[in-house]
Amino acid sequence: MPSIAHLHESGLLAAILPHFAAGPEVELGPGDDAAVVRLPSSRLVITTDALVEGADFLLPATSPESIGAKAAVQNLADVAAMGARPIAVVVALSAPPSTQLAVLEGISRGLADRCAEHGVSVVGGDLGRADQLSIAVTAVGALGEDEEPITRGGARPGDVLAIGAPLLGRSAAGLAQLLAGDLSGEHVAWHNAPAPDLSLGWGAGRGAHAMMDLSDGLVRDGGRLAAASGVRIDLSRALLAADATALAPAAHALAADPWDYVLHSAEEHAMLAAFGPGGVPEGFRPIGRVEERRPEDGDGVLLLDGATISGQGWEHFV
Amino acid sequence: MPSIAHLHESGLLAAILPHFAAGPEVELGPGDDAAVVRLPSSRLVITTDALVEGADFLLPATSPESIGAKAAVQNLADVAAMGARPIAVVVALSAPPSTQLAVLEGISRGLADRCAEHGVSVVGGDLGRADQLSIAVTAVGALGEDEEPITRGGARPGDVLAIGAPLLGRSAAGLAQLLAGDLSGEHVAWHNAPAPDLSLGWGAGRGAHAMMDLSDGLVRDGGRLAAASGVRIDLSRALLAADATALAPAAHALAADPWDYVLHSAEEHAMLAAFGPGGVPEGFRPIGRVEERRPEDGDGVLLLDGATISGQGWEHFV
Repeated sequence: MPSIAHLHESGLLAAILPHFAAGPEVELGPGDDAAVVRLPSSRLVITTDALVEGADFLLPATSPESIGAKAAVQNLADVAAMGARPIAVVVALSAPPSTQLAVLEGISRGLADRCAEHGVSVVGGDLGRADQLSIAVTAVGALGEDEEPITRGGARPGDVLAIGAPLLGRSAAGLAQLLAGDLSGEHVAWHNAPAPDLSLGWGAGRGAHAMMDLSDGLVRDGGRLAAASGVRIDLSRALLAADATALAPAAHALAADPWDYVLHSAEEHAMLAAFGPGGVPEGFRPIGRVEERRPEDGDGVLLLDGATISGQGWEHFV
Repeated sequence: MPSIAHLHESGLLAAILPHFAAGPEVELGPGDDAAVVRLPSSRLVITTDALVEGADFLLPATSPESIGAKAAVQNLADVAAMGARPIAVVVALSAPPSTQLAVLEGISRGLADRCAEHGVSVVGGDLGRADQLSIAVTAVGALGEDEEPITRGGARPGDVLAIGAPLLGRSAAGLAQLLAGDLSGEHVAWHNAPAPDLSLGWGAGRGAHAMMDLSDGLVRDGGRLAAASGVRIDLSRALLAADATALAPAAHALAADPWDYVLHSAEEHAMLAAFGPGGVPEGFRPIGRVEERRPEDGDGVLLLDGATISGQGWEHFV
């Protein structure tokens, strides 16, 4: 298997670029100084997120295709969470010279395939040298002239908190299996490349008062939504019980508590949204309610059946 | 000096975000899942480029502010080189937990200040952990409905090749000084954070037949322009002699040839453009001419007074 150590950049690009198919909205794709993309409106939605080997993924516990897919999902989910349809991405790949060309091809394929599932084009990139493999993706979409972005700040007392996923916690369960050495564990594939229904963001999620994607766990992200909206959120143990039950076998095999998975699983990238009473649309399911902030509440109070939850979700540096 | 090892992401963001001022076109800045920016048109221009410690810069040979400024310049130059005005950037910063908070603040300030000089807003970002400091920036701009992108492919025989810089080669000269341990060398500051006139791209450069920014050296990039346009380019020794003369003292102090600096200096980020005969606008100066490709020419033939040039410019992995 050849490494990239002796390949010229033009040779590398020749191996990678064929994986990137462009939609009709791409006026100019990879190969020049910048790409040109025709957006459906002039109101750009833009986000960026990086994955770094060792910090965000471990080789060979994941596959190059999954790395690419995850890098796509985490960015497309951020655009979707604003209520906007993602349209294009650019990617900056950094890699050690010893990296196998097949790894970069796999990452590119995984990225492009996951983007293509949503009609998103990979329109440009950058290749450079680093000691660790890393992949920084920027995704863009657009909002129509009369469309408000769905921010984290619009939840109101009386709203229903809902999640756009049939099952929460698989990413944490898969990570636990992976760290325990069970690379073929039931939830490892989901951890390596979660596949939430992102179209809920620009579809049914447009009816939400507030929305975000679940990156750092339900407790942490829900707390952010509560803080941004100036409300308290009370999660319902009953509404999340099926998730805990579904993950119980995996948890018990590792002497873990399935509720830790459900409440703190990062990198699910499902849509977390607050809808008006009775307004939870298909694809979402209720998991709690939004209440008036009380004098004793700090910023971002999030409870479970009225009680404080321990654990903080994912922190990069702490 | 505190490191970031014990800071929560919210604390980090609180230190960094105040450096990012937003223009009136920013409907929603950092803090939500994605930013929303009102573009002057729906024709998006987008590019991404990363800088990685060890590969693209060395600490303490450069300053955090310079790293941020260089990350800005290399991306803004790519948008400018399409003939488009840059409008906004997003940035993914990865850093070891031992990184001083002041370093991240300096990078952010350098990035934001250089963007602000061109009226560009920093609208979003991502912070994560890595063994090496790295900064991946994506810049966006827009083209008007009736504006063609200025690609690399439009140069025609008879055109004049021109550069939007009064002096070429300083980045290579500064790198040589830096690698020789002379951190206060005359050209080190330019190498660490070049400051070409980017406004030539969306200004006078709009009249060019072809344009690109000088990232990997005149010979390599000029060869790319020649290849994309299907022409040969002949650089003029007489027109570049003043550059070599200006860099001669720095070169001779290191027993180097100033022509190596002039011909191969990477990371100048000046606009390299081909204009119709007699049409070189103010801010650009002629450095060669575009000729018909000949049967014996390979792809991307670039000559100096009709003779082949040795050296290939910058390669990341070779």
